[in-house]
Amino acid sequence: MLTPKFEHLVKQLQVLPGVGQKSAQRMALHLLSKKRPQGVSLAQALETAMCDIKECSRCHSFSDDDICPICADVRRSDSELCVVESAADVMAIEQSGAFRGRYFVLGGHLSPIDGINADDLHIDELIIRLKNSAIDELILATGATVEGQTTAFFISDAARPFVGKITRLAQGIPMGGELEFVDSLTLHQALQNRAFI
Amino acid sequence: MLTPKFEHLVKQLQVLPGVGQKSAQRMALHLLSKKRPQGVSLAQALETAMCDIKECSRCHSFSDDDICPICADVRRSDSELCVVESAADVMAIEQSGAFRGRYFVLGGHLSPIDGINADDLHIDELIIRLKNSAIDELILATGATVEGQTTAFFISDAARPFVGKITRLAQGIPMGGELEFVDSLTLHQALQNRAFI
Repeated sequence: MLTPKFEHLVKQLQVLPGVGQKSAQRMALHLLSKKRPQGVSLAQALETAMCDIKECSRCHSFSDDDICPICADVRRSDSELCVVESAADVMAIEQSGAFRGRYFVLGGHLSPIDGINADDLHIDELIIRLKNSAIDELILATGATVEGQTTAFFISDAARPFVGKITRLAQGIPMGGELEFVDSLTLHQALQNRAFI
Repeated sequence: MLTPKFEHLVKQLQVLPGVGQKSAQRMALHLLSKKRPQGVSLAQALETAMCDIKECSRCHSFSDDDICPICADVRRSDSELCVVESAADVMAIEQSGAFRGRYFVLGGHLSPIDGINADDLHIDELIIRLKNSAIDELILATGATVEGQTTAFFISDAARPFVGKITRLAQGIPMGGELEFVDSLTLHQALQNRAFI
Protein backbone atom coordinates (compact mmCIF):
# COMPACT_ATOMS: atom_id res chain seq x y z
CA MET A 1 0.00 0.00 0.00
CA LEU A 2 2.58 2.55 1.15
CA THR A 3 5.77 1.64 -0.70
CA PRO A 4 6.97 -1.33 -2.78
CA LYS A 5 9.48 -2.48 -0.13
CA PHE A 6 6.84 -2.31 2.57
CA GLU A 7 4.36 -4.25 0.46
CA HIS A 8 7.01 -6.86 -0.29
CA LEU A 9 7.75 -7.31 3.42
CA VAL A 10 4.02 -7.65 4.23
CA LYS A 11 3.72 -10.33 1.55
CA GLN A 12 6.75 -12.25 2.79
CA LEU A 13 5.61 -12.14 6.43
CA GLN A 14 2.51 -14.07 5.43
CA VAL A 15 4.61 -17.22 5.06
CA LEU A 16 4.51 -17.40 8.87
CA PRO A 17 1.76 -19.73 10.15
CA GLY A 18 -1.35 -17.91 11.37
CA VAL A 19 -0.24 -14.60 9.86
CA GLY A 20 -2.56 -13.01 7.30
CA GLN A 21 -2.56 -9.65 5.51
CA LYS A 22 -3.72 -7.69 8.58
CA SER A 23 -1.27 -9.13 11.10
CA ALA A 24 1.59 -8.99 8.58
CA GLN A 25 0.90 -5.28 8.12
CA ARG A 26 0.77 -4.75 11.88
CA MET A 27 4.09 -6.60 12.27
CA ALA A 28 5.80 -4.60 9.52
CA LEU A 29 4.55 -1.27 10.93
CA HIS A 30 5.58 -2.23 14.45
CA LEU A 31 9.12 -3.16 13.37
CA LEU A 32 9.52 -0.11 11.12
CA SER A 33 8.27 2.44 13.61
CA LYS A 34 9.75 1.12 16.84
CA LYS A 35 12.09 -1.85 16.41
CA ARG A 36 14.38 -1.44 13.42
CA PRO A 37 17.56 -2.83 15.04
CA GLN A 38 15.58 -5.81 16.36
CA GLY A 39 14.10 -6.28 12.88
CA VAL A 40 17.61 -6.51 11.45
CA SER A 41 18.61 -9.04 14.14
CA LEU A 42 15.51 -11.07 13.33
CA ALA A 43 16.43 -11.03 9.62
CA GLN A 44 19.92 -12.29 10.44
CA ALA A 45 18.68 -15.00 12.85
CA LEU A 46 16.22 -16.17 10.18
CA GLU A 47 18.80 -16.33 7.44
CA THR A 48 21.29 -18.18 9.66
CA ALA A 49 18.67 -20.67 10.83
CA MET A 50 17.31 -21.36 7.34
CA CYS A 51 20.77 -21.91 5.86
CA ASP A 52 22.66 -23.55 8.73
CA ILE A 53 20.22 -25.78 10.64
CA LYS A 54 20.35 -29.30 9.23
CA GLU A 55 19.04 -32.73 10.17
CA CYS A 56 20.91 -34.69 12.86
CA SER A 57 22.39 -37.69 11.06
CA ARG A 58 21.47 -40.00 13.98
CA CYS A 59 17.93 -38.97 14.97
CA HIS A 60 16.75 -36.71 12.09
CA SER A 61 15.80 -33.93 14.49
CA PHE A 62 17.08 -30.41 13.75
CA SER A 63 20.70 -29.71 14.54
CA ASP A 64 23.36 -27.02 14.09
CA ASP A 65 26.00 -29.75 13.67
CA ASP A 66 26.14 -33.23 12.22
CA ILE A 67 24.95 -34.71 15.54
CA CYS A 68 22.31 -32.87 17.60
CA PRO A 69 22.87 -31.89 21.25
CA ILE A 70 20.52 -34.65 22.48
CA CYS A 71 22.26 -37.45 20.55
CA ALA A 72 25.63 -36.04 21.63
CA ASP A 73 24.72 -35.78 25.33
CA VAL A 74 26.61 -38.55 27.17
CA ARG A 75 24.44 -38.14 30.28
CA ARG A 76 21.33 -39.41 28.47
CA SER A 77 20.37 -43.07 28.54
CA ASP A 78 20.99 -45.14 25.40
CA SER A 79 18.62 -47.86 26.56
CA GLU A 80 15.38 -45.96 25.87
CA LEU A 81 14.50 -44.80 22.38
CA CYS A 82 11.48 -42.57 21.80
CA VAL A 83 10.08 -42.56 18.26
CA VAL A 84 8.23 -39.38 17.24
CA GLU A 85 6.80 -37.98 14.03
CA SER A 86 8.57 -34.62 13.94
CA ALA A 87 11.21 -32.39 15.55
CA ALA A 88 8.34 -30.41 17.08
CA ASP A 89 7.37 -33.54 19.03
CA VAL A 90 10.94 -33.86 20.34
CA MET A 91 10.64 -30.32 21.59
CA ALA A 92 7.27 -30.94 23.27
CA ILE A 93 8.57 -34.03 25.12
CA GLU A 94 11.79 -32.24 26.10
CA GLN A 95 9.72 -29.42 27.55
CA SER A 96 7.80 -31.92 29.71
CA GLY A 97 11.16 -32.94 31.22
CA ALA A 98 9.86 -36.51 31.65
CA PHE A 99 12.27 -38.31 29.32
CA ARG A 100 16.05 -38.70 29.49
CA GLY A 101 16.65 -41.24 26.70
CA ARG A 102 17.24 -40.74 22.97
CA TYR A 103 14.88 -39.79 20.17
CA PHE A 104 14.26 -40.91 16.63
CA VAL A 105 12.29 -38.65 14.27
CA LEU A 106 10.33 -40.50 11.57
CA GLY A 107 9.64 -37.44 9.46
CA GLY A 108 5.85 -37.94 9.41
CA HIS A 109 3.30 -40.72 9.76
CA LEU A 110 2.05 -43.45 7.43
CA SER A 111 -0.82 -42.14 5.34
CA PRO A 112 -1.46 -44.18 2.17
CA ILE A 113 -4.24 -41.75 1.19
CA ASP A 114 -1.60 -38.98 0.93
CA GLY A 115 0.88 -41.36 -0.69
CA ILE A 116 3.11 -41.56 2.40
CA ASN A 117 4.37 -45.12 2.77
CA ALA A 118 7.02 -46.76 4.95
CA ASP A 119 9.72 -45.86 2.40
CA ASP A 120 8.99 -42.16 2.83
CA LEU A 121 9.72 -42.29 6.56
CA HIS A 122 12.98 -43.32 8.25
CA ILE A 123 11.51 -46.68 9.33
CA ASP A 124 14.16 -48.92 7.68
CA GLU A 125 16.90 -46.91 9.32
CA LEU A 126 15.12 -47.22 12.68
CA ILE A 127 14.92 -51.02 12.38
CA ILE A 128 18.64 -51.22 11.47
CA ARG A 129 19.44 -49.09 14.51
CA LEU A 130 17.34 -51.38 16.74
CA LYS A 131 19.11 -54.43 15.28
CA ASN A 132 22.58 -53.05 15.97
CA SER A 133 22.14 -51.54 19.43
CA ALA A 134 20.98 -52.77 22.82
CA ILE A 135 17.76 -50.87 23.43
CA ASP A 136 15.68 -51.93 26.44
CA GLU A 137 12.55 -49.98 25.65
CA LEU A 138 11.14 -48.54 22.45
CA ILE A 139 8.54 -45.85 23.14
CA LEU A 140 6.26 -45.21 20.17
CA ALA A 141 5.24 -41.60 20.75
CA THR A 142 3.43 -41.03 17.45
CA GLY A 143 0.22 -38.97 17.54
CA ALA A 144 -3.06 -40.27 18.96
CA THR A 145 -4.54 -39.98 15.47
CA VAL A 146 -5.56 -42.79 13.10
CA GLU A 147 -2.33 -42.28 11.12
CA GLY A 148 -0.21 -42.04 14.25
CA GLN A 149 -1.67 -45.27 15.64
CA THR A 150 -1.25 -47.08 12.32
CA THR A 151 2.37 -45.98 12.19
CA ALA A 152 2.92 -47.22 15.75
CA PHE A 153 1.39 -50.63 14.96
CA PHE A 154 3.46 -50.93 11.79
CA ILE A 155 6.70 -50.13 13.63
CA SER A 156 5.90 -52.37 16.60
CA ASP A 157 5.43 -55.35 14.22
CA ALA A 158 8.75 -54.69 12.49
CA ALA A 159 10.62 -53.94 15.73
CA ARG A 160 9.29 -56.86 17.82
CA PRO A 161 12.21 -59.26 17.01
CA PHE A 162 14.81 -56.73 18.21
CA VAL A 163 13.37 -55.06 21.32
CA GLY A 164 11.94 -56.65 24.45
CA LYS A 165 9.71 -53.81 25.56
CA ILE A 166 7.66 -51.71 23.16
CA THR A 167 5.32 -49.09 24.67
CA ARG A 168 2.92 -46.32 23.59
CA LEU A 169 2.15 -43.06 25.40
CA ALA A 170 -0.83 -43.38 27.77
CA GLN A 171 -4.17 -42.18 26.45
CA GLY A 172 -6.76 -40.64 28.74
CA ILE A 173 -8.13 -37.45 30.19
CA PRO A 174 -5.71 -34.51 29.85
CA MET A 175 -4.60 -32.62 32.99
CA GLY A 176 -7.20 -30.07 34.01
CA GLY A 177 -9.78 -31.82 31.84
CA GLU A 178 -13.31 -31.65 33.21
CA LEU A 179 -15.23 -34.82 32.47
CA GLU A 180 -18.26 -33.13 30.98
CA PHE A 181 -16.09 -31.45 28.31
CA VAL A 182 -14.01 -34.50 27.39
CA ASP A 183 -15.03 -36.13 24.07
CA SER A 184 -16.48 -39.62 24.23
CA LEU A 185 -13.62 -41.38 22.40
CA THR A 186 -11.17 -40.08 24.98
CA LEU A 187 -13.51 -41.08 27.81
CA HIS A 188 -13.79 -44.54 26.25
CA GLN A 189 -9.99 -44.86 26.22
CA ALA A 190 -9.71 -43.48 29.74
CA LEU A 191 -12.21 -46.02 31.06
CA GLN A 192 -10.55 -48.91 29.24
CA ASN A 193 -7.12 -47.92 30.52
CA ARG A 194 -8.26 -47.15 34.09
CA ALA A 195 -5.61 -47.76 36.72
CA PHE A 196 -5.48 -48.56 40.47
CA ILE A 197 -4.80 -45.59 42.71
CA MET B 1 15.56 -26.04 23.24
CA LEU B 2 16.80 -28.05 20.28
CA THR B 3 19.88 -26.16 19.11
CA PRO B 4 21.41 -22.75 19.85
CA LYS B 5 20.57 -21.34 16.40
CA PHE B 6 16.97 -22.52 16.73
CA GLU B 7 16.66 -21.00 20.20
CA HIS B 8 18.13 -17.75 18.94
CA LEU B 9 15.57 -17.59 16.12
CA VAL B 10 12.70 -18.31 18.52
CA LYS B 11 13.89 -15.48 20.76
CA GLN B 12 14.23 -13.02 17.86
CA LEU B 13 10.77 -13.88 16.48
CA GLN B 14 9.26 -12.68 19.75
CA VAL B 15 9.97 -9.09 18.73
CA LEU B 16 6.91 -9.41 16.45
CA PRO B 17 3.73 -8.04 18.06
CA GLY B 18 1.46 -10.73 19.48
CA VAL B 19 4.10 -13.44 19.15
CA GLY B 20 5.12 -15.23 22.37
CA GLN B 21 7.36 -18.23 23.06
CA LYS B 22 4.83 -20.79 21.80
CA SER B 23 3.95 -19.11 18.50
CA ALA B 24 7.58 -18.21 17.85
CA GLN B 25 8.49 -21.88 18.22
CA ARG B 26 5.66 -22.90 15.90
CA MET B 27 6.80 -20.32 13.32
CA ALA B 28 10.43 -21.46 13.48
CA LEU B 29 9.47 -25.15 13.15
CA HIS B 30 7.11 -24.40 10.26
CA LEU B 31 9.77 -22.49 8.32
CA LEU B 32 12.51 -25.02 9.04
CA SER B 33 10.51 -28.09 8.12
CA LYS B 34 8.55 -26.85 5.13
CA LYS B 35 9.47 -23.34 3.97
CA ARG B 36 13.22 -22.78 4.01
CA PRO B 37 13.48 -20.83 0.74
CA GLN B 38 10.55 -18.65 1.81
CA GLY B 39 12.25 -18.14 5.16
CA VAL B 40 15.34 -16.85 3.38
CA SER B 41 13.21 -14.50 1.25
CA LEU B 42 11.52 -13.23 4.41
CA ALA B 43 14.92 -12.59 6.00
CA GLN B 44 16.01 -10.59 2.96
CA ALA B 45 12.75 -8.61 2.75
CA LEU B 46 13.05 -7.78 6.45
CA GLU B 47 16.65 -6.62 6.20
CA THR B 48 15.91 -4.49 3.11
CA ALA B 49 12.84 -2.92 4.70
CA MET B 50 14.56 -2.17 8.02
CA CYS B 51 17.59 -0.59 6.34
CA ASP B 52 16.05 1.12 3.30
CA ILE B 53 12.60 2.39 4.26
CA LYS B 54 12.85 5.97 5.49
CA GLU B 55 10.52 8.83 6.35
CA CYS B 56 9.02 10.85 3.50
CA SER B 57 10.50 14.33 3.83
CA ARG B 58 7.14 15.94 3.01
CA CYS B 59 4.58 13.95 5.02
CA HIS B 60 6.69 11.81 7.44
CA SER B 61 4.98 8.62 6.32
CA PHE B 62 7.18 5.65 5.34
CA SER B 63 8.87 5.82 1.95
CA ASP B 64 11.45 3.98 -0.13
CA ASP B 65 12.60 7.31 -1.58
CA ASP B 66 12.93 10.87 -0.33
CA ILE B 67 9.30 11.58 -1.31
CA CYS B 68 6.63 8.89 -0.78
CA PRO B 69 4.37 7.67 -3.62
CA ILE B 70 1.37 9.55 -2.21
CA CYS B 71 3.16 12.92 -1.99
CA ALA B 72 4.64 12.30 -5.46
CA ASP B 73 1.30 11.37 -7.07
CA VAL B 74 0.30 14.30 -9.31
CA ARG B 75 -3.27 13.01 -9.63
CA ARG B 76 -4.01 13.60 -5.96
CA SER B 77 -5.53 16.84 -4.76
CA ASP B 78 -3.29 19.37 -3.03
CA SER B 79 -6.25 21.23 -1.58
CA GLU B 80 -7.13 18.66 1.11
CA LEU B 81 -4.65 17.74 3.82
CA CYS B 82 -5.37 14.88 6.22
CA VAL B 83 -3.45 14.96 9.50
CA VAL B 84 -2.93 11.56 11.16
CA GLU B 85 -0.92 10.23 14.08
CA SER B 86 1.05 7.47 12.32
CA ALA B 87 1.90 5.82 9.01
CA ALA B 88 -0.46 2.99 10.02
CA ASP B 89 -3.33 5.52 9.97
CA VAL B 90 -2.35 6.59 6.42
CA MET B 91 -2.59 2.96 5.40
CA ALA B 92 -6.00 2.48 7.04
CA ILE B 93 -7.46 5.55 5.30
CA GLU B 94 -5.90 4.56 1.96
CA GLN B 95 -7.51 1.13 2.28
CA SER B 96 -10.92 2.77 2.74
CA GLY B 97 -10.40 4.42 -0.67
CA ALA B 98 -12.39 7.48 0.55
CA PHE B 99 -9.65 10.10 0.37
CA ARG B 100 -7.67 11.44 -2.59
CA GLY B 101 -5.81 14.34 -1.00
CA ARG B 102 -2.47 14.49 0.81
CA TYR B 103 -1.44 13.31 4.26
CA PHE B 104 0.66 14.66 7.08
CA VAL B 105 1.91 12.26 9.77
CA LEU B 106 2.40 13.86 13.21
CA GLY B 107 4.40 10.99 14.65
CA GLY B 108 2.13 10.50 17.68
CA HIS B 109 -0.33 12.46 19.79
CA LEU B 110 0.05 15.02 22.55
CA SER B 111 0.33 13.25 25.88
CA PRO B 112 1.87 15.43 28.63
CA ILE B 113 1.65 12.48 31.05
CA ASP B 114 4.08 10.55 28.82
CA GLY B 115 6.17 13.66 28.24
CA ILE B 116 5.02 14.08 24.62
CA ASN B 117 4.59 17.78 23.89
CA ALA B 118 4.01 19.77 20.71
CA ASP B 119 7.78 19.94 20.10
CA ASP B 120 7.98 16.13 19.90
CA LEU B 121 5.48 16.01 17.03
CA HIS B 122 5.79 17.65 13.60
CA ILE B 123 3.25 20.34 14.50
CA ASP B 124 5.49 23.37 13.78
CA GLU B 125 6.32 21.97 10.37
CA LEU B 126 2.61 21.40 9.68
CA ILE B 127 1.76 25.01 10.54
CA ILE B 128 4.57 26.29 8.26
CA ARG B 129 3.23 24.09 5.47
CA LEU B 130 -0.30 25.48 6.00
CA LYS B 131 1.09 29.05 5.94
CA ASN B 132 2.91 28.49 2.66
CA SER B 133 0.36 26.56 0.62
CA ALA B 134 -3.23 27.01 -0.42
CA ILE B 135 -5.13 24.28 1.43
CA ASP B 136 -8.92 24.40 1.31
CA GLU B 137 -9.61 21.80 3.97
CA LEU B 138 -7.58 20.45 6.86
CA ILE B 139 -8.95 17.11 8.09
CA LEU B 140 -7.82 16.29 11.62
CA ALA B 141 -7.95 12.49 11.57
CA THR B 142 -6.30 11.87 14.94
CA GLY B 143 -7.69 9.05 17.10
CA ALA B 144 -11.03 9.25 18.91
CA THR B 145 -9.12 9.04 22.20
CA VAL B 146 -8.59 11.74 24.82
CA GLU B 147 -5.06 12.31 23.49
CA GLY B 148 -6.19 12.26 19.85
CA GLN B 149 -8.93 14.81 20.54
CA THR B 150 -6.57 17.04 22.54
CA THR B 151 -4.10 16.95 19.66
CA ALA B 152 -6.84 17.86 17.18
CA PHE B 153 -8.00 20.82 19.31
CA PHE B 154 -4.43 22.03 19.73
CA ILE B 155 -3.77 21.90 15.97
CA SER B 156 -7.09 23.47 15.03
CA ASP B 157 -6.26 26.46 17.26
CA ALA B 158 -2.84 26.90 15.69
CA ALA B 159 -4.07 26.31 12.11
CA ARG B 160 -7.19 28.52 12.25
CA PRO B 161 -5.47 31.67 10.79
CA PHE B 162 -4.27 29.77 7.72
CA VAL B 163 -7.10 27.42 6.69
CA GLY B 164 -10.74 28.22 6.06
CA LYS B 165 -12.17 24.77 6.71
CA ILE B 166 -10.97 22.51 9.51
CA THR B 167 -12.82 19.21 10.06
CA ARG B 168 -12.71 16.08 12.22
CA LEU B 169 -13.72 12.50 11.24
CA ALA B 170 -17.36 11.76 12.12
CA GLN B 171 -17.97 9.88 15.34
CA GLY B 172 -20.85 7.45 15.72
CA ILE B 173 -21.94 3.85 15.45
CA PRO B 174 -19.52 1.72 13.40
CA MET B 175 -20.81 -0.18 10.34
CA GLY B 176 -22.43 -3.44 11.38
CA GLY B 177 -22.69 -2.19 14.96
CA GLU B 178 -25.75 -3.44 16.81
CA LEU B 179 -27.10 -0.83 19.19
CA GLU B 180 -27.22 -3.08 22.22
CA PHE B 181 -23.49 -3.76 21.95
CA VAL B 182 -22.38 -0.17 21.33
CA ASP B 183 -20.81 1.51 24.38
CA SER B 184 -22.66 4.43 25.91
CA LEU B 185 -20.06 7.09 25.07
CA THR B 186 -20.30 6.18 21.39
CA LEU B 187 -24.11 6.19 21.58
CA HIS B 188 -23.95 9.59 23.24
CA GLN B 189 -21.81 10.92 20.35
CA ALA B 190 -24.04 9.25 17.76
CA LEU B 191 -27.16 10.86 19.23
CA GLN B 192 -25.54 14.29 19.48
CA ASN B 193 -24.29 14.09 15.88
CA ARG B 194 -27.52 12.63 14.48
CA ALA B 195 -28.22 13.58 10.85
CA PHE B 196 -31.23 13.93 8.53
CA ILE B 197 -31.81 10.99 6.22
